[in-house]
Amino acid sequence: MADSEDISRVVERVRERIDPDEDERTALREAASALTARVEEELADLPVDADAIRVGSTARGTWLSGDRDIDLFVRFPEGLDRESLESYGLEIGRAVLPDGQEEYAEHPYVTGEFRGFDVDLVPCYDVEDGSSLRSAVDRTPHHNAYLRERIDDELAADVRVFKRFLKGIGAYGSDLRTRGFSGYLTELLVLEYGGFEELLRAAADWHPPVVFDPEDHGERSFDHPLVVVDPTDPARNVAAVCSAENVARLQHYARAFLAGPDESFFFSPAPDPLSPDEVRSHVERRGTTPVAVVFDAPDIVADQLYPQLRKSLSGVRSELDRRGFGPLRATTFAEDRAVLFVELAHATLPTISRHEGPPVHVRNHAEGFYDAYADSGDYGPFLDGDRYVVERDREYAEASAFLESDAIFDVGLGSRVESKLEESYEVLVGEAVAELAETEAFGVEFARYFEPSP
Amino acid sequence: MADSEDISRVVERVRERIDPDEDERTALREAASALTARVEEELADLPVDADAIRVGSTARGTWLSGDRDIDLFVRFPEGLDRESLESYGLEIGRAVLPDGQEEYAEHPYVTGEFRGFDVDLVPCYDVEDGSSLRSAVDRTPHHNAYLRERIDDELAADVRVFKRFLKGIGAYGSDLRTRGFSGYLTELLVLEYGGFEELLRAAADWHPPVVFDPEDHGERSFDHPLVVVDPTDPARNVAAVCSAENVARLQHYARAFLAGPDESFFFSPAPDPLSPDEVRSHVERRGTTPVAVVFDAPDIVADQLYPQLRKSLSGVRSELDRRGFGPLRATTFAEDRAVLFVELAHATLPTISRHEGPPVHVRNHAEGFYDAYADSGDYGPFLDGDRYVVERDREYAEASAFLESDAIFDVGLGSRVESKLEESYEVLVGEAVAELAETEAFGVEFARYFEPSP
Repeated sequence: MADSEDISRVVERVRERIDPDEDERTALREAASALTARVEEELADLPVDADAIRVGSTARGTWLSGDRDIDLFVRFPEGLDRESLESYGLEIGRAVLPDGQEEYAEHPYVTGEFRGFDVDLVPCYDVEDGSSLRSAVDRTPHHNAYLRERIDDELAADVRVFKRFLKGIGAYGSDLRTRGFSGYLTELLVLEYGGFEELLRAAADWHPPVVFDPEDHGERSFDHPLVVVDPTDPARNVAAVCSAENVARLQHYARAFLAGPDESFFFSPAPDPLSPDEVRSHVERRGTTPVAVVFDAPDIVADQLYPQLRKSLSGVRSELDRRGFGPLRATTFAEDRAVLFVELAHATLPTISRHEGPPVHVRNHAEGFYDAYADSGDYGPFLDGDRYVVERDREYAEASAFLESDAIFDVGLGSRVESKLEESYEVLVGEAVAELAETEAFGVEFARYFEPSP
Repeated sequence: MADSEDISRVVERVRERIDPDEDERTALREAASALTARVEEELADLPVDADAIRVGSTARGTWLSGDRDIDLFVRFPEGLDRESLESYGLEIGRAVLPDGQEEYAEHPYVTGEFRGFDVDLVPCYDVEDGSSLRSAVDRTPHHNAYLRERIDDELAADVRVFKRFLKGIGAYGSDLRTRGFSGYLTELLVLEYGGFEELLRAAADWHPPVVFDPEDHGERSFDHPLVVVDPTDPARNVAAVCSAENVARLQHYARAFLAGPDESFFFSPAPDPLSPDEVRSHVERRGTTPVAVVFDAPDIVADQLYPQLRKSLSGVRSELDRRGFGPLRATTFAEDRAVLFVELAHATLPTISRHEGPPVHVRNHAEGFYDAYADSGDYGPFLDGDRYVVERDREYAEASAFLESDAIFDVGLGSRVESKLEESYEVLVGEAVAELAETEAFGVEFARYFEPSP
């Protein structure tokens, strides 16, 4: 186990790489001020009272050097109707970011560039507290206020280090592909433990479910491995999205880092993509039969796509399991094409499968079963202990035959995935899946799959 | 459902074939009397009081025409030492059956021929009742006395019919290969219900466990599907050997017979043996991989052999199951060679198998697991949810490799089977098992296996 001095030395070197320098801070501060002033000018022309607040990591000094995001929220009175809020929001956005673009989350906002920074200009309501929202983004100014009061320069530095650590281990981000730690969650955890090292030492010993309630106002329980009750909303778990796997990942790498502190934890590169030949040789080495359902990725954002892909994968995998093909592992990924990938123990099953009937002594059922199968051409009915048994022909003896059949539409696919499969899809079996690695991003996915680490 | 008249007509025709005629009865009576007289002559010369009693079906009029067994028990005083009992028993046997042969069950007895009948001459103790035995055979005279008092000519005829029915459906005999209904059990059941038809009508509706206690003196409960407390021994279940499958078999065929009474139920021939080609075509049709472990049958009686074969088969089958080869069904049979036959869903498995480690949060175990596998060359450790997982090389990816290895000796084989396997054995895989059908008796076993009926 390393001592705090070793750890401090590593953290020091990491900070040299991620702390924004004075030039960067100044440039950001000046750009943000100018932008805020421009917005306030425009607000003055509106018939309602509204103000602009900077939120996000660049507003709190917790951004990593090189991040160039400025988040500016325009806060309208709670009584304003939604239509006006939207139109005022867009009006100001268009005025301030004339080359910007309209985006739609819960309601429209504008993104654009300002003096080289990426700006999000988001209208929201000025609500009393996080528990009386009119729209989901209304929480953000409250989060911002809560953290600004509590995160001083020293803690902000530790937040940056912890964020970089999570990025290095692949657990940063509350998007629905990653299902990791959000920026807000990261800051709350550092605040809770008082620093990066303290947090890692604690996390190494966590016994999920791990529950924090900084404001001691939680109103309900959550079925999540990590629970941080939102200080601005007693009914919300800030870590709701964070998967058990990412909690375990943090625990694993916290222990590994404490045992041997090293900068590399913070800057792990993506793995090198596997070539088709490397994929083939893994398949051969493993003696399994991978199958891949390949189709055009639905044209939806990643936060919609990955839940749909996972739901579809889970449906396909469960059904392959239920049918006896023995899935070992599975994964899904997408670029232009999307892939549901399941690695099977058995590509082919016996033609027949055992079907147990009732015990002979349950006379009505037993007679019904016997009569139904006596002349069916199946094997049996015969006796096994006190029951009738028959061996019937299996519906699909080949995994590929099942995947290529309409039965694939009965497994509970994501709806947008289902539409794409209805258009067309391809089933690759065995070493044929290797051709997917011709796409570099898929080669990287195969590296993660076939050369897995925590 | 047939009425009693249809049933009586069939029973009448069956009785014409199985009732001993007057000539047969006379011949038997005369031979048995002469034999008893000879034994009594010899007994007169002994220094102890002893008598001879005829037991078994030929003593009670419940034998089937053509059976030529005379069972004569010589009953010695309870106080006699075992050594004297044995030597007197053999002495008389040798005198009465000079060409006879000494056999050993619990103690020695003599078998031989007398006027064309097969005679068992068995010494036993004259004990008070069935619950104070000095040897297992001491019960028999009590059974005999109990039934002689209660089975009249009419019931004896129904006993014969029921025995023939059980033979026809393959459920007669308490030997450890058949695990069916003993002669004594058959008689008690007919006595209980008052006749063959009454018994079948009742059996068709049985809900095992079915419990009878004719003398209402049972002292304990039994974990058997059919319980008939021995009228001469309150601690014994006469049906202890009868398997759940044979109880179900009686129920099935009782219903079938009542629904369509026919002589054929009583005289089903053994199935025609399958040829090797027929075996091959079943294997192909089923899409399975049968495996057979073939070895010289241990030289022990069937009542010892079949329990050993079954124990060995169960051990091999469970281990094949545990290792993932998916056994569908199994059987065992023997002539000069013995066969453990298991039909597998998978002949070959992936090279790797999944091995789950502890949850990451159980720190001590988790660290131990991770360290043990981190540099093992296996796939992983990686995370699946909150656990570590590795994919290790499977010990045996081929069922045949397992069966041909020393690991087969770790499955709990019967001891005499184990010795034979230690000498040598052969493993047949897939269609190669068909060669076993070159032995006609095995061809019949394959017919039972591949063309199964209740």
